[in-house]
Amino acid sequence: MSGHRELTVELGERTYPIYIGEGLLDEAGKLFAQRGISKKSPLMIVTDANVARRHLDRLASVLTEEGFTVVTAIVPAGENSKSLAELERLIGIALEHGLDRKSAIVALGGGVVGDLAGFVAASFMRGVKFVQVPTTILAHDSSVGGKVAVNHPLAKNIIGAFHQPELVLYDLKTLQTLPEREVKAGLSEVVKHGLIWDADFVQWCDDNAEKLTALEPDTLGYALYKGCSVKAAVVSKDERENDLRAILNLGHTIGHALEAVAGYGELLHGEAISIGMVGAAKLAVRLGAPEEVYQVTKRVLSRVGLPVRLPEHLNTDDIMRAMMHDKKFQEGTMVFIVPTAIGAVEINKSVSSSLIREIVEQLKQEAVIG
Amino acid sequence: MSGHRELTVELGERTYPIYIGEGLLDEAGKLFAQRGISKKSPLMIVTDANVARRHLDRLASVLTEEGFTVVTAIVPAGENSKSLAELERLIGIALEHGLDRKSAIVALGGGVVGDLAGFVAASFMRGVKFVQVPTTILAHDSSVGGKVAVNHPLAKNIIGAFHQPELVLYDLKTLQTLPEREVKAGLSEVVKHGLIWDADFVQWCDDNAEKLTALEPDTLGYALYKGCSVKAAVVSKDERENDLRAILNLGHTIGHALEAVAGYGELLHGEAISIGMVGAAKLAVRLGAPEEVYQVTKRVLSRVGLPVRLPEHLNTDDIMRAMMHDKKFQEGTMVFIVPTAIGAVEINKSVSSSLIREIVEQLKQEAVIG
Ligand SMILES: NC(=O)c1ccc[n+]([C@@H]2O[C@H](COP(=O)([O-])OP(=O)(O)OC[C@H]3O[C@@H](n4cnc5c(N)ncnc54)[C@H](O)[C@@H]3O)[C@@H](O)[C@H]2O)c1
Ligand SMILES: NC(=O)c1ccc[n+]([C@@H]2O[C@H](COP(=O)([O-])OP(=O)(O)OC[C@H]3O[C@@H](n4cnc5c(N)ncnc54)[C@H](O)[C@@H]3O)[C@@H](O)[C@H]2O)c1
Ligand SMILES: [Zn+2]
Ligand SMILES: [Zn+2]
Repeated sequence: MSGHRELTVELGERTYPIYIGEGLLDEAGKLFAQRGISKKSPLMIVTDANVARRHLDRLASVLTEEGFTVVTAIVPAGENSKSLAELERLIGIALEHGLDRKSAIVALGGGVVGDLAGFVAASFMRGVKFVQVPTTILAHDSSVGGKVAVNHPLAKNIIGAFHQPELVLYDLKTLQTLPEREVKAGLSEVVKHGLIWDADFVQWCDDNAEKLTALEPDTLGYALYKGCSVKAAVVSKDERENDLRAILNLGHTIGHALEAVAGYGELLHGEAISIGMVGAAKLAVRLGAPEEVYQVTKRVLSRVGLPVRLPEHLNTDDIMRAMMHDKKFQEGTMVFIVPTAIGAVEINKSVSSSLIREIVEQLKQEAVIG
Repeated sequence: MSGHRELTVELGERTYPIYIGEGLLDEAGKLFAQRGISKKSPLMIVTDANVARRHLDRLASVLTEEGFTVVTAIVPAGENSKSLAELERLIGIALEHGLDRKSAIVALGGGVVGDLAGFVAASFMRGVKFVQVPTTILAHDSSVGGKVAVNHPLAKNIIGAFHQPELVLYDLKTLQTLPEREVKAGLSEVVKHGLIWDADFVQWCDDNAEKLTALEPDTLGYALYKGCSVKAAVVSKDERENDLRAILNLGHTIGHALEAVAGYGELLHGEAISIGMVGAAKLAVRLGAPEEVYQVTKRVLSRVGLPVRLPEHLNTDDIMRAMMHDKKFQEGTMVFIVPTAIGAVEINKSVSSSLIREIVEQLKQEAVIG
């Protein structure tokens, strides 16, 4: 494990390590055993069709060689797999292959697989062990913190649990096969973690944007390490989202509305929240933050290749309605995560909805940086 | 609240009270408010068609008068409602009526409604508050301890969580409408709680069997109080079923097998475990316990009107296979909860399966007490 990075999510008796490094899948057997994953009971790797094609054999054979009994289950790629129907199917596979209370569920994939497999682990026999093996950049966010869920036809992520993994194993090599657009979308959350917590890291992203999008291993490893560190720090202080954890939603109020209005698919999640973060920065300046907050936010996101302008064909009324539906609205005012400087945010509970409407309109005119 | 009984389930920050008494539904509003159920967010009462007809209006109107916003959801009566399909439907109703993170889910009914509504509460928005309003005798068992679950086509109770209620509100009046067979089946778990924990209470059941089956209010109230107390004591010591909680399975290894082989329906759960407890008592005597263990167990169960003989048409091989499937088997030996005296049990991990087969055969010949 030369050159790998390691950090710890501090959560009392649920504390767990995150390992980040090139080729770490090869160490999976040893690390799983160290963290108490049982060799006596079968474990089940859940992955999606895209990831299965590229990385499943390697993980399954490493674990088998190490003495684990491996069951594999493949779901279709895409958000639609986060459903109760897939949950039921996966639990059927687990039962047919004799998984028991000592078994572990392993998520090999992006946030979709992580959220779905995590909820399987949370609910199968009222909770079994869980391991995250993220294969997207976005999953540096979703694999840390223990939020797991599936979707309901009426709302995303509404059926779920808090279920922390035993470990997170991040092999940078798996990211080499990720489509370029997914790379950039994932970097959006990396930048977000800087914007809410760490000005130096934002500066670093600004300086290293090219190497990042090129997936230069050491640069990428450092960025994921920093992103995970911020997420871990916030989650350690507020595991169940009572207060602080809300700051992780920077850019998400507008972002979620854009995803909903555009129809899931036109904008990737990371793209939508990139635009949302520019919106939050504009709002910040209107509320008195230094102009620099807006300029730096927009520049960094542009440099990693993310959109900063809101697609003009999306209807402003629809966007406002989607935000209201999101329940952050209360009688003309909204709860918003607003930057106060680069690397710092506050939770503002009384932003007027008419100001938000103005910002949304302006975001459609946003000049794109060359 | 004259003449009501109260006890506490000690679980650290998840500690909660159980109220048992005649007419307690009328106090629901006050007790809910005391336990922090919000009046600002809508709550949802989940019940089944049988219970809705008899008791839903009363609970809903008491709560409404007290200032709660009440949403109601009715599921078909019966075990089939413990499904992911019903879970999805109920969460749809919750979303359509604007339930949020501060909302509570209220289970008004027997164990089916409690288990299903409890899993809705555990998973909706990753967990909201939960209240148990049991209306069967069996539910003195299922409403205490926080085990909630739905079924998978391949296995019962396999998808679930540990999710403790904020309070349990037991109105003895609701039990007056319970069919007689359900009354007796529920008393089976009451007797079980005596057999594993409290010899005096077993004696008391023996002495009061007639008043119990006649639902004499004070007798019934005391029995449910004692039953809940034993369950609460065991759960307090072992919330997540690591060890001690297993003793609650007295009679259940054979009982579950009988339910499965007979086809759910022929034998009610309480009836099946009554036969199972007689089996465990016979086993106990074979393993050296005093003959009295068998005699008293059989006499008390008979007096409350429960079956003690295994229906002859159930195939012994099928029963043995069903037990093996239940995973308590290991290479010719089984884990069994075995009485050592009346009011005390041990977890025996090496009962030979051939001895169990003998007991099953004998249970078919069991003489029925007049
Ligand atoms: N639990 C949380 O805290 C949390 C946080 C943020 C997002 N999320 C969830 O995460 C999901 C989005 O995650 P995502 O962006 O990783 O989506 P994803 O899992 O759908 O992955 C994106 C695409 O990349 C493919 N892919 C994944 N890894 C690959 C690889 N190494 N090589 C080639 N292709 C690969 C996938 O098949 C998919 O087509 C959403 O459902 C969102 O709700 C959860
Ligand atoms: N969670 C636990 O710890 C636990 C423990 C034991 C059993 N259980 C579960 O409990 C379930 C069985 O519970 P149950 O026996 O209460 O079954 P149930 O909820 O199906 O109720 C039995 C029948 O009585 C009817 N009924 C309920 N209350 C009534 C009333 N007051 N008047 C008239 N009719 C009424 C119901 O409609 C149903 O037809 C099973 O699914 C079992 O798995 C759970
Ligand atoms: Zn996000
Ligand atoms: Zn039972």
